[in-house]
Amino acid sequence: MTTEGPSAAPRPGTTTPLTERSSRVAVARKLTRRAGREKAGAFLAEGAQAVGEALTAHADGVLRVRDVFATEQSRHAEFLDRARAESVPVHLVTERAAASLSETVTPQGLVAVCDLPDTTLSAALTARPKLVAVLVGVADPGNAGTVVRVADAAGAGAVLFAGDTVDAYNGKAVRASTGSLFHLPVARDRDVAAVLSACRAAGLRLVGADGYATGDLDTADRGGELAEPTAWVFGGEAHGLPDEVKSELDTTLRVPLYGRAESLNLATAAAVCLYASARAQHRQ
Amino acid sequence: MTTEGPSAAPRPGTTTPLTERSSRVAVARKLTRRAGREKAGAFLAEGAQAVGEALTAHADGVLRVRDVFATEQSRHAEFLDRARAESVPVHLVTERAAASLSETVTPQGLVAVCDLPDTTLSAALTARPKLVAVLVGVADPGNAGTVVRVADAAGAGAVLFAGDTVDAYNGKAVRASTGSLFHLPVARDRDVAAVLSACRAAGLRLVGADGYATGDLDTADRGGELAEPTAWVFGGEAHGLPDEVKSELDTTLRVPLYGRAESLNLATAAAVCLYASARAQHRQ
Repeated sequence: MTTEGPSAAPRPGTTTPLTERSSRVAVARKLTRRAGREKAGAFLAEGAQAVGEALTAHADGVLRVRDVFATEQSRHAEFLDRARAESVPVHLVTERAAASLSETVTPQGLVAVCDLPDTTLSAALTARPKLVAVLVGVADPGNAGTVVRVADAAGAGAVLFAGDTVDAYNGKAVRASTGSLFHLPVARDRDVAAVLSACRAAGLRLVGADGYATGDLDTADRGGELAEPTAWVFGGEAHGLPDEVKSELDTTLRVPLYGRAESLNLATAAAVCLYASARAQHRQ
Repeated sequence: MTTEGPSAAPRPGTTTPLTERSSRVAVARKLTRRAGREKAGAFLAEGAQAVGEALTAHADGVLRVRDVFATEQSRHAEFLDRARAESVPVHLVTERAAASLSETVTPQGLVAVCDLPDTTLSAALTARPKLVAVLVGVADPGNAGTVVRVADAAGAGAVLFAGDTVDAYNGKAVRASTGSLFHLPVARDRDVAAVLSACRAAGLRLVGADGYATGDLDTADRGGELAEPTAWVFGGEAHGLPDEVKSELDTTLRVPLYGRAESLNLATAAAVCLYASARAQHRQ
């Protein structure tokens, strides 16, 4: 069933698809849970875009793709050919087996098993990025993945998942990042103080996004402070940044609210903050 | 069961909650679908925040709340007292009846039936707002509601739902707007050309957000054009703005991508665009 090169590609009718009961699929299914990912040191990337980005990262030597599972119906011949060209085993699976590996309502019939990066804080910051996003206690994987995408778009050099923030390699987070998880270093550390210290040691100013802050983005922009190397620190959806985290930061800033909305959601607030810094840094 | 004033408030043990089979709940349940909303001229607002905003709008004479449904367990005494003070009938319902009116996974046990605003394009633009958001072909109600929230936060004076954009009064859109749907005029018109003409007649420059545009936000900002009265036009999640819409606009601009992400999602792109205009307009 495993094919080791282009010549042994599964063709419709020539191989029997693996079912959801096969041991290979059952082993991969454990990666839909965090404990399973940690134990196996692997995670799942689902869908054409994520699998394509994973294969690019594999080809670049950034991250190893262990296996690709595809249904006969998935019609992603391009990705399967790329996988085979990189000697990544491709396994034909049933629709039901693919669905059992999926965390989406409409499974795409294409899933890659990837090595879980073990990126340390210092490794993530070693290139001394000028812009970094730090998530503290973010609970929703879709939000976390969207912030990774926004951070990538704004040119951030790393995203740090601190405290009890959701796992970056949760299937929904991987999906929401639309490949950005493969573009920039993502490090995880439960010790928030250690994450903030590492940022400071890397020459970053620690700026928290806080709806109750005295200073706002526009004033900070005019004062020139957004152009400095910055680690933006974002809190959880429900309660924002805890006081003990805020007290460790260089400053907090709020997104100005020009209308009657009481707040922005995490992803849109992060977009406005990260882009404000990116704009200021690129203006120089 | 219907209480017409503070003195007739339902108290635990003194009234029998309406079940999901009661005609009043069955009639309200029709409002979870667009056709039902159009026919009855009403929509549902669920949860403490939305119901609170609806009651504020009712007290301000902006929008009439017809009924409030609450479970005994919902513990929203403050809102029920406000409803009664405004002579809005409050109905005690079972958990199951409340869940049948809910479009969320975790029903909050508190739902208001509100008059569906019939805001025309010209009414929405009559105050000649300097910032407006136009949605063309946006399919996801959560995205649409989030853009309403972002537009409100950025101080926009109206949001226009054009073409086959999802219904603004879909339960998920109402929820994602977190009350902003009650803060600013929202008009709907299937005729995209009519929406664009109305914006132009109101003195607004028509600017489309387009990942393939030649000009970008930063350049436009430096050139001063973002400070002009602007209607930002956003396309659907999958394909963006159709060519026939783009050809009707004054210009298109892209959000600069400083990293390797191929794009932003609709809500985060809208946040960056609307805030860029808001900042430029408030700088003056």
